[in-house]
Amino acid sequence: MVKVALISGSLRKESLSTKIAKSVGGLFPEGYETQFVEIGNLPLYNEDIDTQSNVPAEYTAFRNAIKESDAVLFVTPEYNRSITGALKNALDVGSRPYGQSSWNGKPAAVISQSIGNLSGFGANHHLRQSLVFLNMPTLQQPEAYLANSAQLFDENGKMNEDTTQFLQTFVNTFIDLIGRHQN
Amino acid sequence: MVKVALISGSLRKESLSTKIAKSVGGLFPEGYETQFVEIGNLPLYNEDIDTQSNVPAEYTAFRNAIKESDAVLFVTPEYNRSITGALKNALDVGSRPYGQSSWNGKPAAVISQSIGNLSGFGANHHLRQSLVFLNMPTLQQPEAYLANSAQLFDENGKMNEDTTQFLQTFVNTFIDLIGRHQN
Amino acid sequence: MVKVALISGSLRKESLSTKIAKSVGGLFPEGYETQFVEIGNLPLYNEDIDTQSNVPAEYTAFRNAIKESDAVLFVTPEYNRSITGALKNALDVGSRPYGQSSWNGKPAAVISQSIGNLSGFGANHHLRQSLVFLNMPTLQQPEAYLANSAQLFDENGKMNEDTTQFLQTFVNTFIDLIGRHQN
Amino acid sequence: MVKVALISGSLRKESLSTKIAKSVGGLFPEGYETQFVEIGNLPLYNEDIDTQSNVPAEYTAFRNAIKESDAVLFVTPEYNRSITGALKNALDVGSRPYGQSSWNGKPAAVISQSIGNLSGFGANHHLRQSLVFLNMPTLQQPEAYLANSAQLFDENGKMNEDTTQFLQTFVNTFIDLIGRHQN
Repeated sequence: MVKVALISGSLRKESLSTKIAKSVGGLFPEGYETQFVEIGNLPLYNEDIDTQSNVPAEYTAFRNAIKESDAVLFVTPEYNRSITGALKNALDVGSRPYGQSSWNGKPAAVISQSIGNLSGFGANHHLRQSLVFLNMPTLQQPEAYLANSAQLFDENGKMNEDTTQFLQTFVNTFIDLIGRHQN
Repeated sequence: MVKVALISGSLRKESLSTKIAKSVGGLFPEGYETQFVEIGNLPLYNEDIDTQSNVPAEYTAFRNAIKESDAVLFVTPEYNRSITGALKNALDVGSRPYGQSSWNGKPAAVISQSIGNLSGFGANHHLRQSLVFLNMPTLQQPEAYLANSAQLFDENGKMNEDTTQFLQTFVNTFIDLIGRHQN
Repeated sequence: MVKVALISGSLRKESLSTKIAKSVGGLFPEGYETQFVEIGNLPLYNEDIDTQSNVPAEYTAFRNAIKESDAVLFVTPEYNRSITGALKNALDVGSRPYGQSSWNGKPAAVISQSIGNLSGFGANHHLRQSLVFLNMPTLQQPEAYLANSAQLFDENGKMNEDTTQFLQTFVNTFIDLIGRHQN
Repeated sequence: MVKVALISGSLRKESLSTKIAKSVGGLFPEGYETQFVEIGNLPLYNEDIDTQSNVPAEYTAFRNAIKESDAVLFVTPEYNRSITGALKNALDVGSRPYGQSSWNGKPAAVISQSIGNLSGFGANHHLRQSLVFLNMPTLQQPEAYLANSAQLFDENGKMNEDTTQFLQTFVNTFIDLIGRHQN
């Protein structure tokens, strides 16, 4: 069983990124297990509160959730032309302590979205720059920029057909990448 | 009296970014007042907890501190090839609610630093991308990339002469920019 | 008379970026003179062919055109998630020889465009990163991302009303920035 | 036999990027063949001169050289906080005509260098943003940022021991990546 962590960059209960992450979770085939990992409870990263003798329980739980995953799918909105503070904080928490990054080597994929045209392009590529340092082989094509994201779901919360088909291709290609990186 | 907010991207008590920010604060001439603004107490931004009837007290205090400033100086380390989650969160908190951004129109300057060669280049330019959206006229030259930042201070916490001279020029040029954007 | 250089990132004769640049040129008020500066004839930058005794005539003409300008407006498409090689080459040519950059200190504004949703976001911000180094104070808001750019013009080559109004505001704000940076 | 194209972002005869590229070429083991591919003769990309009936001979030769390669190693200096115009132009030429990109699917690795501290960080990551679009799986760790590059070589043009060892690890990890992406 291959485990894929789903991470949404937005903390709102009705977040579109979260809805998309959960919908995409449903597109993985048998043999794959997806788990939505919360980031909203993580205290802002501060080395002073993250010492050998005293690690916040939320940090430990988050790091374990990532370590137990085989791959990570990020869905991110754009705040101020970058990823959210919450998502960046989660990257930082998972990357420490030095030499024990939870992210190391895990294949990743990025979906960005916005309610307008720009589709979170700035967030998408800022996130990718961090993934280089975190040593996560990242899906290149298909890039996933979702425009007009408020219109992707019908009143029952079902994602429209075109987007679903596109994201199915995206998931299939991500699965291929994951396969290539399983030693 | 022109007020300049000083913001450090790191929360550690012994943070080099914080030390640099406070040292640079001392380089402003008469007629300028600098204020170090804390960002470590800001809850992760979430629109659900930031409603008209219920705004976290820390958000309000932070937004007021920025609004009362005439300009902002950022000093940032690099975490995972970008700014810290804490700094991005502060940008997000100050930018809301929609249409009432505290940052709007205030001149900004950016110093990045690292203990190695790279000097926080990735953090420096990710921050600048957000400052475009936040509509903050930002000092271009001199760029301030501080390498080997653990060696900038002597045992009494005094910044070395060369760096101090460079940052004095930096401050002077920033003051020129601030002057051009007053009313 | 304030002189504004117009630079298009695309070399195609029917380039949308060029059409936009020329249309925007018409939105400057009395007292402003715009000049379209060609970049397609510049040999790829190579220090070996740009020596004190032997400078390509195209380099000299281009550098003079920029030096005689008071400000620069860039209109850029996106090629492979960045600016075009032609535009980057023009930036490089204008920036040399060391210490004699033609760009230095001149206010700049950036318009990016694409025929799809993404509006050249990647090109827009890559260009801005170079403008930091080139010391060009750059218009922050309004950012200009033009989506679906093939539909901006009618059959007579006239730009539609909404875009024209938006770009008039853009030009007016740019003029304000230029004014703040004249001596 | 696995073929690796070596591309240098600089056109100078005595270019440090070119020297590094050629030195790294010598670090590939048996079974690998490296080929230095020139980019300085490519006319600035312009769709008008690249039509079905009339393709510049230099474009065709360059595209064929890339197509015949199994992987690509880029060594880039930084000009104005980005890659050189020459390198961006080569990316553009190789990416066309639409739907026939020569780069598609080929594993890539990036080395950036500068004669100072910053090591071409800005060029390194701008290049990576293009490689996403070009669908080239790119080596994440080890990142290769070479500082003080004028001091890497002795008077006989031999790269120093530490750098050679680091780049041998870099090459070995790249070879692992190439292996993962062969069919």
